[in-house]
Amino acid sequence: MRNQGILGANSFLFTEYKYLAAFTATFAVVIFLLLGSVHRFSTGSQPCQHTTIGRTQTCKPALANAAFTAAAFLLGAATSAVSVHLAMRIATYANARATLEARRGIAAAFAMAFRSGAAAGFLMASLVLLVLYLTVKAFAGVYYGDDWEGLYGSVVGYGLGASSAAMFGRVAGGIYTKAVVLGADLVGKVERDVPEDDPRNPAVIAGMVGDNVGGIAGVGSDLLGSYAESTCAAMFAASISSSSGGDFPAPAAVACYPLLIGAAGLVVCLVTTLIATAEVFCSFKAETVRGVARALTVLMTVAALAVSFVALPANFTVYDFGQVKQVKSWHMFFCVAIGLWAGLAIGISTDYFTSNTYSPVQDVADSCRTGAATNVIFGLALGYKSVIAALGMLSTVATRLAIVAYGPISDNAAGIAKMAGMCRRIRQRTAAGNTNAAIGKGFASGSAAMVSLALLGAFVSRAGVTDASVVNPKVSVGLLVGAALPYWLSAMTSVGIVALKVVEEVRRQFNSIPGLMAGCAVPDYARCVGFATDASIREMVWPGALMLLAPLVAGTFFGVTTLAGMLVGAMVSGVQIAISGSNSGGAWGNAKKYIEAGESDHAMSLGPKGSDPHKAAVIGDNIGDPLKDTSGPSINILIKLMAVESLVFAPFFAAHGGLVLK
Amino acid sequence: MRNQGILGANSFLFTEYKYLAAFTATFAVVIFLLLGSVHRFSTGSQPCQHTTIGRTQTCKPALANAAFTAAAFLLGAATSAVSVHLAMRIATYANARATLEARRGIAAAFAMAFRSGAAAGFLMASLVLLVLYLTVKAFAGVYYGDDWEGLYGSVVGYGLGASSAAMFGRVAGGIYTKAVVLGADLVGKVERDVPEDDPRNPAVIAGMVGDNVGGIAGVGSDLLGSYAESTCAAMFAASISSSSGGDFPAPAAVACYPLLIGAAGLVVCLVTTLIATAEVFCSFKAETVRGVARALTVLMTVAALAVSFVALPANFTVYDFGQVKQVKSWHMFFCVAIGLWAGLAIGISTDYFTSNTYSPVQDVADSCRTGAATNVIFGLALGYKSVIAALGMLSTVATRLAIVAYGPISDNAAGIAKMAGMCRRIRQRTAAGNTNAAIGKGFASGSAAMVSLALLGAFVSRAGVTDASVVNPKVSVGLLVGAALPYWLSAMTSVGIVALKVVEEVRRQFNSIPGLMAGCAVPDYARCVGFATDASIREMVWPGALMLLAPLVAGTFFGVTTLAGMLVGAMVSGVQIAISGSNSGGAWGNAKKYIEAGESDHAMSLGPKGSDPHKAAVIGDNIGDPLKDTSGPSINILIKLMAVESLVFAPFFAAHGGLVLK
Repeated sequence: MRNQGILGANSFLFTEYKYLAAFTATFAVVIFLLLGSVHRFSTGSQPCQHTTIGRTQTCKPALANAAFTAAAFLLGAATSAVSVHLAMRIATYANARATLEARRGIAAAFAMAFRSGAAAGFLMASLVLLVLYLTVKAFAGVYYGDDWEGLYGSVVGYGLGASSAAMFGRVAGGIYTKAVVLGADLVGKVERDVPEDDPRNPAVIAGMVGDNVGGIAGVGSDLLGSYAESTCAAMFAASISSSSGGDFPAPAAVACYPLLIGAAGLVVCLVTTLIATAEVFCSFKAETVRGVARALTVLMTVAALAVSFVALPANFTVYDFGQVKQVKSWHMFFCVAIGLWAGLAIGISTDYFTSNTYSPVQDVADSCRTGAATNVIFGLALGYKSVIAALGMLSTVATRLAIVAYGPISDNAAGIAKMAGMCRRIRQRTAAGNTNAAIGKGFASGSAAMVSLALLGAFVSRAGVTDASVVNPKVSVGLLVGAALPYWLSAMTSVGIVALKVVEEVRRQFNSIPGLMAGCAVPDYARCVGFATDASIREMVWPGALMLLAPLVAGTFFGVTTLAGMLVGAMVSGVQIAISGSNSGGAWGNAKKYIEAGESDHAMSLGPKGSDPHKAAVIGDNIGDPLKDTSGPSINILIKLMAVESLVFAPFFAAHGGLVLK
Repeated sequence: MRNQGILGANSFLFTEYKYLAAFTATFAVVIFLLLGSVHRFSTGSQPCQHTTIGRTQTCKPALANAAFTAAAFLLGAATSAVSVHLAMRIATYANARATLEARRGIAAAFAMAFRSGAAAGFLMASLVLLVLYLTVKAFAGVYYGDDWEGLYGSVVGYGLGASSAAMFGRVAGGIYTKAVVLGADLVGKVERDVPEDDPRNPAVIAGMVGDNVGGIAGVGSDLLGSYAESTCAAMFAASISSSSGGDFPAPAAVACYPLLIGAAGLVVCLVTTLIATAEVFCSFKAETVRGVARALTVLMTVAALAVSFVALPANFTVYDFGQVKQVKSWHMFFCVAIGLWAGLAIGISTDYFTSNTYSPVQDVADSCRTGAATNVIFGLALGYKSVIAALGMLSTVATRLAIVAYGPISDNAAGIAKMAGMCRRIRQRTAAGNTNAAIGKGFASGSAAMVSLALLGAFVSRAGVTDASVVNPKVSVGLLVGAALPYWLSAMTSVGIVALKVVEEVRRQFNSIPGLMAGCAVPDYARCVGFATDASIREMVWPGALMLLAPLVAGTFFGVTTLAGMLVGAMVSGVQIAISGSNSGGAWGNAKKYIEAGESDHAMSLGPKGSDPHKAAVIGDNIGDPLKDTSGPSINILIKLMAVESLVFAPFFAAHGGLVLK
């Protein structure tokens, strides 16, 4: 069975990468053509756009930028694909070894699984940072030299590449995983009373494939994309800021500060992982995980302090939305620290809303008494309420003027939270696991908002948007349409159709294979896997097109001002849907587990398994699954991908955009 | 039984008005104190704020404006309360007469019910317009004279008063109605298999009270508030626009244009109502209702054309966000026409998404085969998808520069749609009724967005906001927090707790009153009514506080720039939630009816009543009810109330606001 699971995961990945390769090749050509057209494919040097204060300087031609951006794009996508593939191999071997270790006891198996998860995570994060660093070095050495504007502008392509790969991994993987889980649960648990992971369920192998696909390929590529994007955006912002100061050239450390912070984050995470033993993570006691998150935040604050004061000059000049500002090194540290502690605050609020040791989840469980409808209404309300708690904290960050370096930090935190949740089979059975997953998702949405704010700032500068006022009708139109995009995406990725197909297939097999329920016959596992793979890759086409085309269409036809509004609209509404979805989903999941565990008189009164309240809880859990595992993550990718794409194409939009509404 | 229903409704209204009176008295004092403090309660005249181009003019003291604003506020609230009370009396008599007419056949009863509904509607709309007109006349005659800035600035208080009353009517009424319906259905239909409106159900009388409370007091006061707000906002915008032109004073018709359009709308609606006989409306054939909507749009376009060319000068000057513009009368007509046709377009898209003659609802019905969870997921996805269709149309409106007069128009359309849906007991049993209700709600959300855009424009001018750019961190913070407010409100108004209490009370009575199921004993109806009334008024406190305090806190502590961002954020995310909620809810309702009606082979295969797919459909319907009938309307009120309140307090915020973040 396990072997079939690995084969299935590989075949899923193979199918996915085939499409990814075709897509990236095509899109690289698009990037080259559109960006090359900025100065009509001229090979002559051009006056710089941002490097104007202090002295006039000549920058490299747009045609060269187009070529280097396309190259960086391909590098980003390839790095993501290779590192995800490596991580999958690690996970595969680790799965096998964990099975062996399990003979020596459950603790050893847990430790094994956790350590390999951590190894895969660090491999991916280091690789993406390393290749990015080498790309910057190589581009500068081979061609750009002192032309920071061209250099960091092109390097942004790397972020776009990595996040395109993330789109494939996350959206197709997410659709697949959840459709399969939903299909297996709806027929198996609700209709047939077959326990979870029972080999009689035809969707059980497909579910195991989903664990690898969703848990490693999906989460991993998402993390990588986010990491690459935020680092690129921060470097771009830092470079145009510092390159236009009077004391040009600013020390290289200013532009590379985001890379340094990212690297320091890796070291801190490594130390934290070593300190926190495998048992701490895999026992999934909520208290200990909370302790680790706090330790991580404190250590990272110290590391950021060190990096800021050692690497940065005490005073330097940045160019911030048209104004030249004197910045001190502690300002930068302050921004990073706020990002870090806001992340912790988001975690704490998520914990409150989704952990079943607090009243919100217990209230949701209670509402199961009166049926599935009240359970759903309560869960939705809880998710809605949590939005404001999380955002109250996020917004303290947004008040900071320098939107430079906090993206990578939050991503680090999100990464650790995700790695901590990697022992998925175990996580599924514990309520703390759901809470940790929700915390990770809270981080992810928070960091998506921040990354997209950072990218937006860079975009507004690069595209030369002059009036982005909310009462400007062009901006209002963009805001409204942008705010609708996450809804559209949610509708597209709510796995309704794939799940329905899987449910029907599973039901068909239960009904038509004689002796299946008695355990005398083997279901057709492969058919379920193939079914879900094809359907989910096919269903990714439209969401993918939406994400990639929306900024291109808006920028080309309606101009950069409307596009800026659209990015803000998508960010503002997307973050809310993602957070509320992830918290509603987490709460429903935990309410179900609360009833199943039956560890208090209150919980006992709602159980046991199979009681009417429990059935209502299962329905809530099934509704929550796609909200938290497919729609939410897809929205994060939407927000970031649209913003990084707009940043990459900003010169094109500025030169030729706004055909309908200049 | 009917008598008990009327008594219940009156007691509900009495309780509501008691709180409303206490609230308005207190809030009028707050208005007077805050606005009076603008120039430190000085009784001397002040230089004008907007009347600066062309010549300098002295305006009335802020203290006088404070007093007149408070008076207008009280007038607005009183007008709303009185007209709703009158409408309730009409409805009460009509109920009785319709019962008598019913002996002469169902058609006569329908005609009776519809005509009285129309009478109540026209009464309310005319009264609010009339009092508004008289207020303007009286304020100008008694004190203001030529000081348009002070005059129309004070009259905005009327809008705030009417919408405060709407908040009470809509939010408390909405919570009440849906809690009761949900409570009656969950126990009666799902658990006990008791038909709808069966006298054995203890919540049946409470449900009848809910019909009057929600259908007349709630919808009516909402409509009035919206009407008053948009007219006031438009008049204010028109007055500061035209008063600052070089050719001051501009003709009075320019400032009164919104009033004229509103009056013309009333006439057109009256004509349409006369042409469309009662049978057309109450047969609820979707085709005929569509025809009426089209006829209304065409007639209103003609009327707007006439008003624009007869009343307006061919050329005049407006002051539009800092720029002086030459406007021709056909520009104004163009804006109105776009608003009208956008409304029709919203209606058509809503029709597609929620009528069971099209595939979306049939797909939702189909998903009931696989249980309640897939039904819920499909319905949510449908609502999400519909957002973008509706907003694509809305946004064509937002592109227009002059945001003057379309608010009242959309409200007229919404009013007619609502009046057409007033025969609620009948509507409940027909699918077209659900679609009409969803169309009405689509209009309402659309017009809420437009009204709030218009109010926002007026606010930005009045408060003197200079940099409302989306990359301004103060605006970003406002956007994020504002976007979270509708979610918070939804969480607060999702009737979870009240419904739970009603469910438990109904269940308790079913279990404890011997002979109830056999029909030998009478349930304790009054206890259900009292229960729901108290709980819903108490539950309104927090949502009400949220709506009223959010702009005050933001403006006072964080300044007008953040407040502008918050208003936009709330508008942008609120409209999406309201539209998706109303369409999801409509689709679930119609999917249930589609299965119950069983009019096609497909529908037959999902039925009959009581089958598993039908039970899943009932769960979806119950989840959708609060989304479409409580959260959605509350969000519309939130958006408009916050905007009109900001406009009223703009001078205060500009003078003393921004304590924390200037």
